[in-house]
Amino acid sequence: MANELETGLPSIRQIQTLIREDKEVEIKLLTNDLVTGKIRWQDTNCVCLVDHYDQQTVIWIQAIAYLKPKG
Amino acid sequence: MANELETGLPSIRQIQTLIREDKEVEIKLLTNDLVTGKIRWQDTNCVCLVDHYDQQTVIWIQAIAYLKPKG
Amino acid sequence: MANELETGLPSIRQIQTLIREDKEVEIKLLTNDLVTGKIRWQDTNCVCLVDHYDQQTVIWIQAIAYLKPKG
Amino acid sequence: MANELETGLPSIRQIQTLIREDKEVEIKLLTNDLVTGKIRWQDTNCVCLVDHYDQQTVIWIQAIAYLKPKG
Amino acid sequence: MANELETGLPSIRQIQTLIREDKEVEIKLLTNDLVTGKIRWQDTNCVCLVDHYDQQTVIWIQAIAYLKPKG
Amino acid sequence: MANELETGLPSIRQIQTLIREDKEVEIKLLTNDLVTGKIRWQDTNCVCLVDHYDQQTVIWIQAIAYLKPKG
Repeated sequence: MANELETGLPSIRQIQTLIREDKEVEIKLLTNDLVTGKIRWQDTNCVCLVDHYDQQTVIWIQAIAYLKPKG
Repeated sequence: MANELETGLPSIRQIQTLIREDKEVEIKLLTNDLVTGKIRWQDTNCVCLVDHYDQQTVIWIQAIAYLKPKG
Repeated sequence: MANELETGLPSIRQIQTLIREDKEVEIKLLTNDLVTGKIRWQDTNCVCLVDHYDQQTVIWIQAIAYLKPKG
Repeated sequence: MANELETGLPSIRQIQTLIREDKEVEIKLLTNDLVTGKIRWQDTNCVCLVDHYDQQTVIWIQAIAYLKPKG
Repeated sequence: MANELETGLPSIRQIQTLIREDKEVEIKLLTNDLVTGKIRWQDTNCVCLVDHYDQQTVIWIQAIAYLKPKG
Repeated sequence: MANELETGLPSIRQIQTLIREDKEVEIKLLTNDLVTGKIRWQDTNCVCLVDHYDQQTVIWIQAIAYLKPKG
């Protein structure tokens, strides 16, 4: 199905690892916003980022330029 | 069908929950506009936001960078 | 066929209603242009807007951020 | 075939008419460039614009915000 | 196959001609960069431009606004 | 499968060569960021760049304007 994550892809697997290891990441958006937090989940449309105050941000993957694991 | 919502996806379900709970959200667009309101409906192309004056804004999903539930 | 309008979708139906009721709309584009007028037709690629001087503008849907019915 | 023009669509037909009638158009791009000329041909990827000096510009449709027939 | 060039399309054929005739082109990108050179190859994702110092630039087609043959 | 790399494409092969030869590249993004490093892997969504401090950046291909191999 078109809406299942392709868990064989390195990019999908890397995000799964970041979720499992509860790692801080920094995501640069096409708007030039830089958002940071921990990834709670990913699906084929979005990733959900959670900040220090447990505030959620649902980011559309179409709007992502790059992602960096922190430190 | 390609035009039915994939209600199994976390991102689609989260928006359905926000509609049901009548929650205020803030949506950042690729134009850098920040729009706020309550989501009235979603389909595969758009979400419809309603503000305090009951004014509707139909937002194309292609133009969304991120969405934050408020408070 | 991929090129028929999905008239079951709320977003498509809302535009059909705006055409039928000859309503003024305001459309924000990804270029940050704000264009106003009445929608004459829509297809799967474009919407056609007509202003007070009957000047047509064919807008690509890919370039739309949001649409607001006026007043 | 995915690469044949859908000549049943109003947007495709309107461009065909503009080609046949040799009409001047103005095209706004997502880069905010405004280019003018006559459309020589269209295919599923591009339109070709020709200016007064017969200089060709091949424009990717993905980059078009809107098109206006002139005068 | 989705990844073969549709050599029947005018836009693809025009680029093939520019490659064969070793013509200088100018390409405007969605970043507003203007790059010039000769096209060495095209595929369904990219075109490869070569400048006077034989430096290659692989350009993603998704990022192209327009292309102009020079002189 | 839609998610296997089309290794017959020149653009995919060129990146494979850059990975194998451990070459420095410069990538221009649609955000106008210019990032440099060596490509560690590519898949159908992303390329992974590694800098001098072994810091990884996962870049979405959708956000790439161009790529240049360095000197």
